[in-house]
Amino acid sequence: NPSSSARVFSFFDRTLFSSAAPTPNLIRATLFPGDGIGPEIAESVKEVFKSAEVPIEWEEHYVAQEIDPRTQSFLTWESLESVRKNKVGLKGPMATPIGKGHRSLNLTLRKELNLYANVRPCYSLPGYKTRYDDVDLITIRENTEGEYSGLEHQVVRGVVESLKIITRQASLRVAEYAFHYAKAHGRERVSAIHKANIMQKTDGLFLKCCREVAEKYPDITYEEVVIDNCCMMLVKNPALFDVLVMPNLYGDIISDLCAGLIGGLGLTPSCNIGEGGIALAEAVHGSAPDIAGKNLANPTALMLSAVTMLRHLELHDKADRIQSAILATIAEGKYRTADLGGSSTTTDFTKAIIDHL
Amino acid sequence: NPSSSARVFSFFDRTLFSSAAPTPNLIRATLFPGDGIGPEIAESVKEVFKSAEVPIEWEEHYVAQEIDPRTQSFLTWESLESVRKNKVGLKGPMATPIGKGHRSLNLTLRKELNLYANVRPCYSLPGYKTRYDDVDLITIRENTEGEYSGLEHQVVRGVVESLKIITRQASLRVAEYAFHYAKAHGRERVSAIHKANIMQKTDGLFLKCCREVAEKYPDITYEEVVIDNCCMMLVKNPALFDVLVMPNLYGDIISDLCAGLIGGLGLTPSCNIGEGGIALAEAVHGSAPDIAGKNLANPTALMLSAVTMLRHLELHDKADRIQSAILATIAEGKYRTADLGGSSTTTDFTKAIIDHL
Ligand SMILES: CC(C)[C@H](C(=O)O)[C@@H](O)C(=O)O
Ligand SMILES: CC(C)[C@H](C(=O)O)[C@@H](O)C(=O)O
Repeated sequence: NPSSSARVFSFFDRTLFSSAAPTPNLIRATLFPGDGIGPEIAESVKEVFKSAEVPIEWEEHYVAQEIDPRTQSFLTWESLESVRKNKVGLKGPMATPIGKGHRSLNLTLRKELNLYANVRPCYSLPGYKTRYDDVDLITIRENTEGEYSGLEHQVVRGVVESLKIITRQASLRVAEYAFHYAKAHGRERVSAIHKANIMQKTDGLFLKCCREVAEKYPDITYEEVVIDNCCMMLVKNPALFDVLVMPNLYGDIISDLCAGLIGGLGLTPSCNIGEGGIALAEAVHGSAPDIAGKNLANPTALMLSAVTMLRHLELHDKADRIQSAILATIAEGKYRTADLGGSSTTTDFTKAIIDHL
Repeated sequence: NPSSSARVFSFFDRTLFSSAAPTPNLIRATLFPGDGIGPEIAESVKEVFKSAEVPIEWEEHYVAQEIDPRTQSFLTWESLESVRKNKVGLKGPMATPIGKGHRSLNLTLRKELNLYANVRPCYSLPGYKTRYDDVDLITIRENTEGEYSGLEHQVVRGVVESLKIITRQASLRVAEYAFHYAKAHGRERVSAIHKANIMQKTDGLFLKCCREVAEKYPDITYEEVVIDNCCMMLVKNPALFDVLVMPNLYGDIISDLCAGLIGGLGLTPSCNIGEGGIALAEAVHGSAPDIAGKNLANPTALMLSAVTMLRHLELHDKADRIQSAILATIAEGKYRTADLGGSSTTTDFTKAIIDHL
């Protein structure tokens, strides 16, 4: 077993490098700065990307003031088209405006862009102390169905039901992605998380699909872990896990649990994979309206998410450089934002990252 | 905020004592020693209870070798009748025999005895080191419906659905129990755990019921926490929580997660509350067939569960005495079973507890 500090870096160490790739042309990527602290942390990412000479040109889209009837939400049709065309994007936090008659912005993005997998690399950050220093895992969440069907029904007064839908198509698709990811990143094990002892048909189908895909990857160990047991093992010994793949709600729960192990959503990158090769990276934390515009926000989650976007584009040298600079800045501990116990401004923290590039 | 070591003992410190109670007559209680290590750890409980002069007479029932057609399971009708009559019982681990045509023993017990709430006090054990020393909470799980309806359906090939059922009756019942428990044990806060932002009707009804009950307990703080966020908060700072009440599956997940924080299912007591005042305490760990009969098993979870049964019977002096002796033995560290890193036998560990009585 490699030492825990060595494991921490494995997310990029183990990535496949396309060594002799020519310098690519300028790549267009959609940027949703989002609300609240979104614009500040997006600015921070843009500056770091510029300093690192990342060949990306951003196409910025903001949340609209009014519902766009074509999307039934505050996301404009043009902004969705932008992601569809560019195939890569980065998204800051978006507070769903309060009121009826529209869909949550996050759910709209998932539905409209068919973002079927949410991928979160989760690893202990050297120098940033939590109760765990041995986390190095990837959660892969099915993102389109399951408990999120939206199908609910009142049978009689006082008796309501929700439908959980599992399909072979979506289960195979996310399982394929999980094994593909594991192989591409030199990961050794995929654990499918389920409650098939209770939901034999739905979670049973999910497992069946995972098993089918596992057959095609004889070099990757495949195991099945019941969700309650998985959560217990994660808090006792997260080093037991490598890549986890799960239906929607379990993924929602476990990805946040894992983020908690390493310090919270402010430090956790996330990337959504959609049909047709779309990758929409996103910071999954909130828009923190209380500190918005005050130069206090922590851009780490958005920047690490942007790094996952670079990896999707196979710009691994840029990704490594930026990721190392972020981790070095946090490890050094001199410049940290308030949420990490420091007193740096967003701009000072960003400058420190640029100095580490 | 009281210090964490003080909080640890609050489970019995804060219990209401019925100070001038007369010595009760002998109370009959059902005992299911269970399979695997079950008989050994049940023996251990019986010895400790005898030494502490607990006025209980055990009525023992074993898992049958054949399916009882009246219960459709390996639990006999007589054993269920015993719990119904005695209203209190203690249950060791039961491995559901492999094969078709019968129901899981645990699920059968829940259904047949209408065990509507699973209650697990979860607190850091002084002297037994985990990553957490500040856990002191109670999880209360709705135990009869939700995702455990058993209603599943294949719509077309490759498309399956499960029904989650939430009723006003069961939600009110478990909410009432949670607030009653909180008040009786001097707890200050009840958190309802949910995903009503997605399952607005089902989890929405659960929350509505919790709110109705909360109104009747103005001295207890009531809050609602989304399950993903709850899991993140639990691993970051479990001291944020006091009493948690939740639908079935969330309770299944969170109660095991919490057990993980303090060392696992081998240390966690559990008690099921049924209609008509039934209390069936149980060790929720497995039957560990690999070490069965070898005098290596850890009786802690079963013994602490038996303590919750004593509290249900308001035998608080006995409960305190036994719980203190168990905790003191573990804290002392001289006698610990292999699962806790020691090399004691079950009988030595049991003797040590008796010495501490
Ligand atoms: C806000 C909510 C709908 C969302 C979800 O449950 O998917 C969030 O928890 C997430 O993980 O992105
Ligand atoms: C074995 C299984 C059916 C059971 C459950 O999910 O309820 C177990 O996990 C539990 O918590 O008692």
